[in-house]
Amino acid sequence: MSEVLAESIDRTVEAVHSRDVHLVNELCKELHYADLAKLYANSNEDERSFLIEALGVDLFKEILAELPGTLVEITLDQFDRSDLKEILGSLPDDDRVDILQDVSDTKRQDYLSLLDKETQEDTRTLLRYGEETAGGRMTTQFGKIRAYMSVKQAIDHLRSDLESTETLARIYVVDDDDRLIGKIRLRDLAFNVWNTPIRDVLIPEENTVLASADQEEAANMLAKYDMVLLPVVDESNRLLGVITSDDAIEILEEESTEDIEKSAGIAGEQSEETYLNTSIRSHFRRRCGWLVVLAFLAILSGFVMMRFENTLTEIYLLSLFLPMVVAAGGNSGGQASTMVIRAMALGELNLEDARRVALKELQLGFFLGLLLAVSIGIFAIFAPPALQFELPRGVNFTQFGITVAIALGLQVLTSTLIGALLPIAARAVKIDPAVIAAPAITTIVDVSGMVIYFTVAHSILSL
Amino acid sequence: MSEVLAESIDRTVEAVHSRDVHLVNELCKELHYADLAKLYANSNEDERSFLIEALGVDLFKEILAELPGTLVEITLDQFDRSDLKEILGSLPDDDRVDILQDVSDTKRQDYLSLLDKETQEDTRTLLRYGEETAGGRMTTQFGKIRAYMSVKQAIDHLRSDLESTETLARIYVVDDDDRLIGKIRLRDLAFNVWNTPIRDVLIPEENTVLASADQEEAANMLAKYDMVLLPVVDESNRLLGVITSDDAIEILEEESTEDIEKSAGIAGEQSEETYLNTSIRSHFRRRCGWLVVLAFLAILSGFVMMRFENTLTEIYLLSLFLPMVVAAGGNSGGQASTMVIRAMALGELNLEDARRVALKELQLGFFLGLLLAVSIGIFAIFAPPALQFELPRGVNFTQFGITVAIALGLQVLTSTLIGALLPIAARAVKIDPAVIAAPAITTIVDVSGMVIYFTVAHSILSL
Repeated sequence: MSEVLAESIDRTVEAVHSRDVHLVNELCKELHYADLAKLYANSNEDERSFLIEALGVDLFKEILAELPGTLVEITLDQFDRSDLKEILGSLPDDDRVDILQDVSDTKRQDYLSLLDKETQEDTRTLLRYGEETAGGRMTTQFGKIRAYMSVKQAIDHLRSDLESTETLARIYVVDDDDRLIGKIRLRDLAFNVWNTPIRDVLIPEENTVLASADQEEAANMLAKYDMVLLPVVDESNRLLGVITSDDAIEILEEESTEDIEKSAGIAGEQSEETYLNTSIRSHFRRRCGWLVVLAFLAILSGFVMMRFENTLTEIYLLSLFLPMVVAAGGNSGGQASTMVIRAMALGELNLEDARRVALKELQLGFFLGLLLAVSIGIFAIFAPPALQFELPRGVNFTQFGITVAIALGLQVLTSTLIGALLPIAARAVKIDPAVIAAPAITTIVDVSGMVIYFTVAHSILSL
Repeated sequence: MSEVLAESIDRTVEAVHSRDVHLVNELCKELHYADLAKLYANSNEDERSFLIEALGVDLFKEILAELPGTLVEITLDQFDRSDLKEILGSLPDDDRVDILQDVSDTKRQDYLSLLDKETQEDTRTLLRYGEETAGGRMTTQFGKIRAYMSVKQAIDHLRSDLESTETLARIYVVDDDDRLIGKIRLRDLAFNVWNTPIRDVLIPEENTVLASADQEEAANMLAKYDMVLLPVVDESNRLLGVITSDDAIEILEEESTEDIEKSAGIAGEQSEETYLNTSIRSHFRRRCGWLVVLAFLAILSGFVMMRFENTLTEIYLLSLFLPMVVAAGGNSGGQASTMVIRAMALGELNLEDARRVALKELQLGFFLGLLLAVSIGIFAIFAPPALQFELPRGVNFTQFGITVAIALGLQVLTSTLIGALLPIAARAVKIDPAVIAAPAITTIVDVSGMVIYFTVAHSILSL
């Protein structure tokens, strides 16, 4: 955040504290609606009421679509019906739909009844698409012309509808049944001879997305093909709306956050609120599930330790390297699974690549295991005697170091393989790899680490 | 990936295998350059040479900018100088710069000498900006007009330069010294009266980025303010170029990947290659560093285990819950740090919020710790006797269960706090939280878990 911006936000916050309506109004006019929405969301209840009053309907309607879902209804409740009518009527339709998706059913019907008939119908149609589908995210306010038009007719047609058009980054050409034929750029109209037929300047549009498709699919397509707009169609290729690149950016950021959170065992939907504004209860609910499950699963490692009581108590020095061998598995498995999950998310890896991934990670696991085995092995041979730790009669430090090294190498090798293949296996049985991988891998490699360590110790040191 | 696309890619791959130049050329014409680039990058050396030949200069120059950096030079080497001249001369300047950044110094000078004087100079200027700065990512081929023009003059001016203009999503208005005054939309030209002065239709541009700024700053700004283009300026507000939204999407995806990889202890730059095409050596190099460091750090936990030898051997049943207490700390600390790091990356948290974060996580840690303590505590009281595990004389299972519960609760509470505050502390001393947090937290909470567990056991069970 630039210093200038930080400063003007600070001044606004101060003006809000001193309840100076005029100053607040003046300062807020200078702020971008995204900053204004953040300021509002970070305020307390009193300050919010004050801000609504100070900003007035005109300024306030800009920030509504930027508010976290939990704030929408209580904010709208503060306006009277004529203000609500103006606010909801003047919003771009994708913003209006976003807002209506965040309020209760009763309120939604009530708000819809405030709109004029046509807007009401369009909005109801959009509301039928799921919130996370391409249809739920699209805007219907884009440039649409017919193939039989001339450049002049197209310009006149677009001009008459300019007020309600959100984007003209691409203008789509449809046939009489609204089926998508192609697209043109506004520059093809602006800089062309007026009697040129649209048919002559249009280029076919190859990439479209179904309204029922997941919003992530739409965003990925837009990103992959460097598009500024992605047309949304129905099964008969009828053009319903467009996804804009700022929607795509928002979707991609949400999905990244979700993936990151899932891999840390955080469940549920990403909060629309900021971290600080999310309630303790909601934080708790998202984190408690996996914590309890993982705690019970981790007792499995405890059972392995119980099983090898004799080995450990006989050579207690084994405990010096036990946590390390277990942790090394978690770390190397975590690296491998992170790489594979991200590659799958970016569309680089498919199920058929499992064999190639296995081969790659087998080699990597071998070399990484070897590196760790040698470095820690040397440490295990020379450090413990120097620190005056003792081994029972009949076991020497070289044997001990080799035991640690072999166990560590095997643990890294197997963990790397497990880490890489488990996400692919999860995908194969249609489980989201990001949800399952990290917790499952940690549990599995913790147990396998214990088993490997004690088994190797048991056989080499012939206990 | 749609089935139609997958099928046409499969057919192309087959045609490449059978070296059918005509069929390959025909099929490739139907593919988007992004898919074509992927196909090329996934081919072996022979197939690549064949593809270059089959595609020809015209088709091939489309995909050059999409290739991973490591493939650029060896690919360009296959063209003769007149082809190179055509390819490099016809690329948009940001793509040309991207490509030249990926080749050796000698080659770069050689390629530059192929360009006409003006292009050469422009390209050299752009090459001076770092690869990861706004200047290094911007394009200079955008619409630029002067405030004294009329709508008609502006249209004529833009039309004369249309060929080399990459985007007209926004047209920027500058003064005689090229200083940015404002912007207009193309629609303001296309649908306006021809003698309207530009001065009357322009709106001021409030958000700009310095050419020397980090590319991430530019991308975040574009995302936050829902912009389609972000103007890049120098210290005197002279307009140098623009960042497009597809560049922003690419930057944001790279940064997300990097953050995800860093938090798994994967070092170094994200590979431009796909996972499968990245060499074992490069994978190894990125993963080995943290693995070795973390392995040595994990020995600290081993020292704690050595220190409490008496406690553990006297009540060996403690080992049943030891791995669980340690792991619960890693899990809860990992959740907290993930939340905080992501909130910082999204600009929701600043250093001044540390106290509020601490307060929040203290409460969360308390409730999460309580939940785990109660569930596992009950298990620890009733399960071990049912499984016929034994405790030494003078210790009963209720005491034992309470011990486990208290240690677990304390471990979750402290780990949650550590997990939340360590990333903020890292940021305060200007260390990237994503790099340091996960490994450091794991090490710290592993050690603290051991200490807490054994100390609690030692005092409660009065050993």
